[in-house]
Amino acid sequence: MYREQIKVLDCTIRDGGLMNNHGFDDRFVREIFRAISQAGIDYMEIGYKNSQKLFDAKKYGAWKFCEDDTIRRVTEGIESKTKISVMVDVDRVDLDDIKPKKDSPVDMIRTACYVKDVDKAIRLANHFADKGYETAVNLMAISKVLEVELNECFAQLEKECRCNVVYIVDSNGALYQETVEYLIKKAKSIIKTKEIGIHAHNNQQLGFGNTIEAIIHGANYLDSTIFGMGRAAGNCPTELLLGFLKNPKFDIRPILDIISKEMIPLQKEVEWGYVIPYAITGILDEHPKSALELRNSDRKDKYREFYDSFAGSSEVE
Amino acid sequence: MYREQIKVLDCTIRDGGLMNNHGFDDRFVREIFRAISQAGIDYMEIGYKNSQKLFDAKKYGAWKFCEDDTIRRVTEGIESKTKISVMVDVDRVDLDDIKPKKDSPVDMIRTACYVKDVDKAIRLANHFADKGYETAVNLMAISKVLEVELNECFAQLEKECRCNVVYIVDSNGALYQETVEYLIKKAKSIIKTKEIGIHAHNNQQLGFGNTIEAIIHGANYLDSTIFGMGRAAGNCPTELLLGFLKNPKFDIRPILDIISKEMIPLQKEVEWGYVIPYAITGILDEHPKSALELRNSDRKDKYREFYDSFAGSSEVE
Repeated sequence: MYREQIKVLDCTIRDGGLMNNHGFDDRFVREIFRAISQAGIDYMEIGYKNSQKLFDAKKYGAWKFCEDDTIRRVTEGIESKTKISVMVDVDRVDLDDIKPKKDSPVDMIRTACYVKDVDKAIRLANHFADKGYETAVNLMAISKVLEVELNECFAQLEKECRCNVVYIVDSNGALYQETVEYLIKKAKSIIKTKEIGIHAHNNQQLGFGNTIEAIIHGANYLDSTIFGMGRAAGNCPTELLLGFLKNPKFDIRPILDIISKEMIPLQKEVEWGYVIPYAITGILDEHPKSALELRNSDRKDKYREFYDSFAGSSEVE
Repeated sequence: MYREQIKVLDCTIRDGGLMNNHGFDDRFVREIFRAISQAGIDYMEIGYKNSQKLFDAKKYGAWKFCEDDTIRRVTEGIESKTKISVMVDVDRVDLDDIKPKKDSPVDMIRTACYVKDVDKAIRLANHFADKGYETAVNLMAISKVLEVELNECFAQLEKECRCNVVYIVDSNGALYQETVEYLIKKAKSIIKTKEIGIHAHNNQQLGFGNTIEAIIHGANYLDSTIFGMGRAAGNCPTELLLGFLKNPKFDIRPILDIISKEMIPLQKEVEWGYVIPYAITGILDEHPKSALELRNSDRKDKYREFYDSFAGSSEVE
C-alpha cells in the first residue's frame, strides 16, 4: 500500500533553531540524530549554512553555520542511513564554505527563496549540483504569489535548474486542502523531471492534513519536525506522519521516546505549536513575525486586539 | 462564496463536560453562551439529557442532566439567535423528562448511538420529532464499522427516521481525509432527505482538516468546540472553523475574547488537546479511554511503553 518514492525529511533542528537562535547543544542534536536514524527517516536537516562574513558566529548557535566539523561531531559513532541536509538562503551563503560533496558530511543542500528570487536560487542549486550534492529549491510564502509569476517560476525551474526537488513552502500556515491540491497539481503539470515536496506550517492545525493532501496529489518529499517543533506554530509532526505512512522501514517508537525525553522538557523553555496569535496570522495569511513579537510582550494573550490590528494596518485604496 | 446551508454547532460545554464531570459553573456557561451568540453560531450544545433514575445527580455537574430550568438560568437575559441543543445516549434517557418543544428552551435533541443501536436511536429521534424538536442521530465510532452494516444503517435511517441530520462521528480521531471523503460520499449517496453532519476528534490534529474535507463533499452540519476543548484530544476548534467559513454572519472576535478570558485559565486545570497518548490511540484507531487513564497515572509520559501495550493487548488468531 505504501509509495516507495516517498521521502521524509525531518527538519526539527533547522526549523526549530529559528526559535532558539540555533542554539541546540551537541548532546541534544546527537540524540535527535540518533532517534531520526533509528526511526528510518530519510533525511535530517541540521541547520543553515550562513556566511560568517555576514553573521557574527559569537551571536548565534552552531546550527546557523553548520560547519562540516560541527556536523561530524554530532553524527560520528551513531549507526545511521539518514542523509544530512542543510539549508541556504539566497544572498546569505558564502560559496567558498561549500566543499565538494566527497569532502563533506552533507548530502543535500536546499536553497530557500521567494519566487521573485528564483534566478538566484537556480544559480545556487546548479552550483551545489556541480559540487556533487543532492539539491532542492524551497519556494517560500507560496500563498502570496500571483499565479502568472508562479507559472513562470515553475517553468523556469523545470527548464534551467538541475535540482532534484522543488518544494511548496506554506510559510504563513495559510493554505487549506483545496489550495494545496491546486498548487501541487500545478507544480506536477509543469515540473516533469523533478520531485515535488511540501513544507507545511501548523498555524491552523493543518500541517499534517495539508501534507497528506500533498501526498494524495503526488508530492513525494515531505518535511516534518518532531512534536511539530518549528518556527511559531511549528510544522507537520514527524510522529503523525510516520503513523500515517505505511512503509515498514519507518519505526515511530524512537520518535515517541525522544518526545518523552527531550521535547516535553524543551517545551517548558521554548514556545511553539497551537497558539492563537499564530492561528490568527495563518487565517489572515500574514507572516508570523508580528505574532512572535506579540508573544514576547505583555499583551501576549490579547487576541481580539491583535486580530483587529490587522484590519487597521493597511491603507484602503 | 459561502454556502448558506452550513450550520455550526458548538459543543464546548457538552463534549468538554466529559473532562470535568459536566461540572462547569453557571457563570462560565453563561459567558460561553454569550460568546457563541455574539459570534453568530447556529447551535450551542449545552450538555446531556441523562435520567436521574440512572445517575445520581449529586455525583455529577448540572450539564449531565440539562433540566429546562437550569438551561433558562444560564441563557436568560442574553440576546441570542443561537439555538440550544442537548444530546441523549440510547438507554440513558427518561422520555418523561422531555417536555413538548413549546414548553422547553431546547430546540434540538441529538441522539448518539453506535451503529448496532440504530434501531433504538431511530425510535428516540422519532419520539423527539413528534414532540416538536429538531433532531439528529450521531453515529459514533464510525471508523470501526463494517461497510455492510454501515450501508444498512444509512438505508434504514433514510427510510425510517424523521431526524433532520445524520452525523458521522470520528470518536477515535482515526479518520484521514480519504476516509472522510469516502464516508461522506457514501452517506450522501444513500441519505437523500436529510443533512449530513461531521463531528471530528483531534487526536491526529485532523479535526479541522477532516471537517473541511467533509464540507468539500457536502456535509452542512459542523461540530466544533472553542479552543478545541473536548474529550481527550478535543475537537475541531470553533475559531479555526469561523476563520475558514466565509458567511459574514459569523464573527470570530467574541470567540477570541472568550479564549483569552476563560479557556487559557481553564487549560491550567483541565488537560485537552494534542497529547501524544491521544495521538497514539488515534493512529491505532482505539478509543481514547486507555490514554485518559494513562494521563491520570504516574506513567503519563511513557509513550513508547503505551504504544507497545497495544501490540501485546490482543490474542493473535
